[in-house]
Amino acid sequence: MEQLLGPWPLRFSRLPMFPLFDLAHYTASVLSLREQRGAVEVSYQSPIACWFSAMLYCFGGSILSSLMMGEPPVAFLANTTSVLLASLVWYLIFYSPHDLAYCCSAFLPIRLMVAGMKEVTRTWKITGGIAHAHSHYKNAWLVMIAVGWARGAGGGLISNFEQLVRGVWKPETNELLKMSYPVKISLIGSVLFTMQHASYLPIEKHNLMFFYTIFLVVTKVAMMLTLCSTSPFAPLERTLAYILFGWQPADSRGKSEAKVPHNGASSADRTIGGETSDSSRKRHSKKTE
Amino acid sequence: MEQLLGPWPLRFSRLPMFPLFDLAHYTASVLSLREQRGAVEVSYQSPIACWFSAMLYCFGGSILSSLMMGEPPVAFLANTTSVLLASLVWYLIFYSPHDLAYCCSAFLPIRLMVAGMKEVTRTWKITGGIAHAHSHYKNAWLVMIAVGWARGAGGGLISNFEQLVRGVWKPETNELLKMSYPVKISLIGSVLFTMQHASYLPIEKHNLMFFYTIFLVVTKVAMMLTLCSTSPFAPLERTLAYILFGWQPADSRGKSEAKVPHNGASSADRTIGGETSDSSRKRHSKKTE
Amino acid sequence: MEQLLGPWPLRFSRLPMFPLFDLAHYTASVLSLREQRGAVEVSYQSPIACWFSAMLYCFGGSILSSLMMGEPPVAFLANTTSVLLASLVWYLIFYSPHDLAYCCSAFLPIRLMVAGMKEVTRTWKITGGIAHAHSHYKNAWLVMIAVGWARGAGGGLISNFEQLVRGVWKPETNELLKMSYPVKISLIGSVLFTMQHASYLPIEKHNLMFFYTIFLVVTKVAMMLTLCSTSPFAPLERTLAYILFGWQPADSRGKSEAKVPHNGASSADRTIGGETSDSSRKRHSKKTE
Repeated sequence: MEQLLGPWPLRFSRLPMFPLFDLAHYTASVLSLREQRGAVEVSYQSPIACWFSAMLYCFGGSILSSLMMGEPPVAFLANTTSVLLASLVWYLIFYSPHDLAYCCSAFLPIRLMVAGMKEVTRTWKITGGIAHAHSHYKNAWLVMIAVGWARGAGGGLISNFEQLVRGVWKPETNELLKMSYPVKISLIGSVLFTMQHASYLPIEKHNLMFFYTIFLVVTKVAMMLTLCSTSPFAPLERTLAYILFGWQPADSRGKSEAKVPHNGASSADRTIGGETSDSSRKRHSKKTE
Repeated sequence: MEQLLGPWPLRFSRLPMFPLFDLAHYTASVLSLREQRGAVEVSYQSPIACWFSAMLYCFGGSILSSLMMGEPPVAFLANTTSVLLASLVWYLIFYSPHDLAYCCSAFLPIRLMVAGMKEVTRTWKITGGIAHAHSHYKNAWLVMIAVGWARGAGGGLISNFEQLVRGVWKPETNELLKMSYPVKISLIGSVLFTMQHASYLPIEKHNLMFFYTIFLVVTKVAMMLTLCSTSPFAPLERTLAYILFGWQPADSRGKSEAKVPHNGASSADRTIGGETSDSSRKRHSKKTE
Repeated sequence: MEQLLGPWPLRFSRLPMFPLFDLAHYTASVLSLREQRGAVEVSYQSPIACWFSAMLYCFGGSILSSLMMGEPPVAFLANTTSVLLASLVWYLIFYSPHDLAYCCSAFLPIRLMVAGMKEVTRTWKITGGIAHAHSHYKNAWLVMIAVGWARGAGGGLISNFEQLVRGVWKPETNELLKMSYPVKISLIGSVLFTMQHASYLPIEKHNLMFFYTIFLVVTKVAMMLTLCSTSPFAPLERTLAYILFGWQPADSRGKSEAKVPHNGASSADRTIGGETSDSSRKRHSKKTE
């Protein structure tokens, strides 16, 4: 493999993230914040809440991993340049006249490039998190996986609290109950890099970084182009779950799922008359997509 | 007393918790998680959320006390053996074929033994927490009580956030508003051991551990056998509360309790018919007092 | 200016906060807790939850800034004298016979004095927070502003979680979405003192402390006497917001505000008639983008 690819993986693994890739990460993050329901209203009502929300999107992984390691979660603010860059992106995307910046960055080719570059930063974050955890806990591979995952998936894992900043509270779901694809792939990446770090994988780090990043970018771009949001691991997951957890077949699972959100306050209100069957049918169809 | 009991308390205080007592603690914790409403559905829908929930049940005290002491809350993951043991218990209790492991451990005699052994670990956790707090803050007895309590009652005190992992949110109650018996007895134990540590109690540490543990185990087993959940301290509490806080008699207290959960979101739905004007009038008059 | 005021600002800046000003801060904090809806009921139902809530009101700034700096949030408990003083104030205001202590401290002249003295402690807290942040992160002015703000506004910024202790949960609002005047003025103070610290302001520290405190006290007392709660910065804010964020005029802003709280739990109840299908269709199309 070394002969086939030449020095590319090694050179790739030395790519500096600042400023171009970081910029892409901030742009993609703020874009996805802006497309949350209600975010634009919040940006006019309270720019500070909106800015804080944007920072949680951009630096969520760093904040979460700091909290997990008992370090100051405000440490990211000490890197003034990054924060100012992210704030500039936030300002342009939310407040530029005639939504110029937003329309530009939402233009498909630019969006694809930005999303691809953001995925590159994910690899760097995961390996950074693992190295950081390793420097504190020697050979504690569970800590390494957890911190690598937190830093790679960051914004997603704390989404409940990020929403709370904007006055939105959805306790009935979170990224652990219903993992999104980026959170899932970050977990897999974190496991892979931790195994590589512990020398369980017969591959060098720069090669793994190269292949993992290419996989990330390709699947991300493919999912954006095909408008499909099902994880490419779905069949693998289903088999694994069947072996490990003896999952019931899909229809009985659907039944048990419908009973899940035992949220004291609201579950009773939602199921009214014929609506239940209808909405659950929709949910099913969404899942089987 | 020393003559009466001989070397037993001292020997008892040197009992190693790992692996038998820890195993019992994990079993009792995962059993009580499994018996939460909706937990089984979550275990099929998202094994990761279920596993995380189980870890919060098993290591909640350690996580909470780490957070309180500004230490890495992921530190418990560094003890790989314990985490693997707890995960094994979680796996067996939730996913074993025909619920074999669950039915076995829910068999009353086994359950009693497991519950009794879990109570033994509580003593060790409280004294461990107090010693840890003391090593950071000399003679800060409030910190010692708080950390000892957090480690002893752990899972209970963070139950709101543990539930959130499973998509359940019950803001109208928490362990501070309505203390369960284990949380209460942990607080009392933490106060006692802190007083012993500061030499305010004329008793040696191993004797106090011995008697406190016996009290814990006996009351726990008695409460399980009689299916009674009222705390043995209820009369004492009532008297103390009457002296300290001038509590109203039980019936008027019951009335005020019913009015408590002023949860913004749902309070409007609860007031039906003529009740609204009545309760709001009362509230107004209370404010103008 | 130095000649005009003589040695007063310098002497003022050396005022010790303990015990008189701290006492006033605890009194004002516990008073404002007691006037929260439902607080009195909680005080009878669960004195511990009430006490914990009162501590969050009194030491909220210290707890929040400790969390932000990765330090033990229980550190405030190590200062036993302060905690006992705050607990005494809490006990008297909630449980004194015939509400004597509450009625006394709610008497307008006393209340004005207490509120004025509480504002003095705010200046000390902000400068303390900034100095503390500076000792950890040299010249990271964003960290200094954040920690100074957190310590100055403390109780307010964590109000959502303070309410949760009392069983109240209002996710649709928080101090970032709708800043109260004390939170706003703390932020401004934190920015000013950070600029002074970085020598961007041509004024000495004790002079700035003097003028800022006088401004705090005068506006606070004036707002209490005129029962007016609009910030004196409102016109400035509106102009600044118009320049920076191109805000719409007030009426269209009012409209967008009404649409903000997209709280998952209650959104279903709000969608009436044909609106549901429409908005859900939009949401679907957004997801498939």
